[in-house]
Amino acid sequence: MNVGTIGILGVGAVGGSIGLRARRNGLRVLGADVNDSALTQAFAAGAIDARAGADEMAGQVETYVIAAHLEPTLREIERLRGGAVKGPALIIDVSSVKVPVAQAAAGLRNFVATHPMAGTERSGISAARPDLFEGRPWAYVPSGDRELDERAGSFIETMGAVPFAILADEHDLAVALSSHVPQLVASCYAEIVASSDTVARQLRGPVACELLRISGMSFDMWRDVFQANAGNIERPLRFLGRELQRVADALAEDDIESIRPLFG
Amino acid sequence: MNVGTIGILGVGAVGGSIGLRARRNGLRVLGADVNDSALTQAFAAGAIDARAGADEMAGQVETYVIAAHLEPTLREIERLRGGAVKGPALIIDVSSVKVPVAQAAAGLRNFVATHPMAGTERSGISAARPDLFEGRPWAYVPSGDRELDERAGSFIETMGAVPFAILADEHDLAVALSSHVPQLVASCYAEIVASSDTVARQLRGPVACELLRISGMSFDMWRDVFQANAGNIERPLRFLGRELQRVADALAEDDIESIRPLFG
Repeated sequence: MNVGTIGILGVGAVGGSIGLRARRNGLRVLGADVNDSALTQAFAAGAIDARAGADEMAGQVETYVIAAHLEPTLREIERLRGGAVKGPALIIDVSSVKVPVAQAAAGLRNFVATHPMAGTERSGISAARPDLFEGRPWAYVPSGDRELDERAGSFIETMGAVPFAILADEHDLAVALSSHVPQLVASCYAEIVASSDTVARQLRGPVACELLRISGMSFDMWRDVFQANAGNIERPLRFLGRELQRVADALAEDDIESIRPLFG
Repeated sequence: MNVGTIGILGVGAVGGSIGLRARRNGLRVLGADVNDSALTQAFAAGAIDARAGADEMAGQVETYVIAAHLEPTLREIERLRGGAVKGPALIIDVSSVKVPVAQAAAGLRNFVATHPMAGTERSGISAARPDLFEGRPWAYVPSGDRELDERAGSFIETMGAVPFAILADEHDLAVALSSHVPQLVASCYAEIVASSDTVARQLRGPVACELLRISGMSFDMWRDVFQANAGNIERPLRFLGRELQRVADALAEDDIESIRPLFG
């Protein structure tokens, strides 16, 4: 293990941002990625010092960051658990659903499940920025090992973010409401705007802009998240759908006053 | 009529912003408001040069801006139609539904119905900014009198905005989708977040932030708009509600792939 060295598996928007920030902090950054040209771009962007094979990287670094989508994250955790890797003083993931990660990682030494609450609708290294996490909450699931959890908290602080301890199931319930439901609302909304032949596309309010902005995100990024967190997303989404229909009824019946309680 | 003088009825966020910008452009700005302390604040904020009574203001100014909510706007149009005011070379309103305004103003000399697509979730003069309209579309309903419409377009340009000609009914359909539906979605979403006991409030994504931001708007500001535009809002709102329920069903049935088409 080389003190002051960090390994990042997956040099996309989040992994690349971690690399840029870590290098700015004076760390040596190794990068691994299934996509070779992503590594070349990450190196050119200054997000990594050198590439490494995923196989050996974990054995060389002090901090190991799995910066992949949910499914590859679970596979990597499986691989690390099966292997003889003793290396990193801290292993974290950054995927957006924590119950399956915490379950998969049971018994994996020095692992802390985390989730930075920052992101971008764009993916890939071109969306990486060293200040992506600045001032944003970064959730982590306490492992029960206080020293390890402090290491995770310190790492999060070096990224400019604010550590936020939360249980895995509580996290997944919270992000269903704060992130996954809004994403699905945005996608459904964008579908309606796209199918309308009005000039709504030009006459956008700020919320419409924001909804249409994130509606452009890739389904492949979200697929596993929706599947893994379906149980938490379904209920508020159904409730929201029913509320909107109730409001539509109120409008149809000229019963506008019944909407008032929605406005706090 | 005093050339280079503008009268603003209603010195709230929009009227105040028009005043700030007009004064920066070298115009003399008169302000009228049912609320006396609003006028004092507008004067202190530099948004008006002097107060005037609404009754005489229209007779003194070159441009007369009705910067009020929908119902008082309709009342003012009624008053101007009934009166002997011959003054202003241009009268505009800035309310957010145009069909009832265009109907009410039929025959009112030099009137053009308009709607700046800019705003703020805060109301009152403290939310006024001279650059509120900078680069934003500002819709207007052509009156048929080319010279008058050019005057309206020029005025909009002096506000830093981009004139956008549109028929009244087309406008109302467009803003139902681009502004009124998102507002109602935000209000319903905020209701769900408020009633949840998760930490969703802390772990907010950017869209959740935006939805919760506008959900704080006052119902009294929206009431007349929802009522006047109910016919255009109801259909897309109901469709959106049904789509969200369909997605909830897909999640419950582990049929995630059926969501894919929503992601363009």
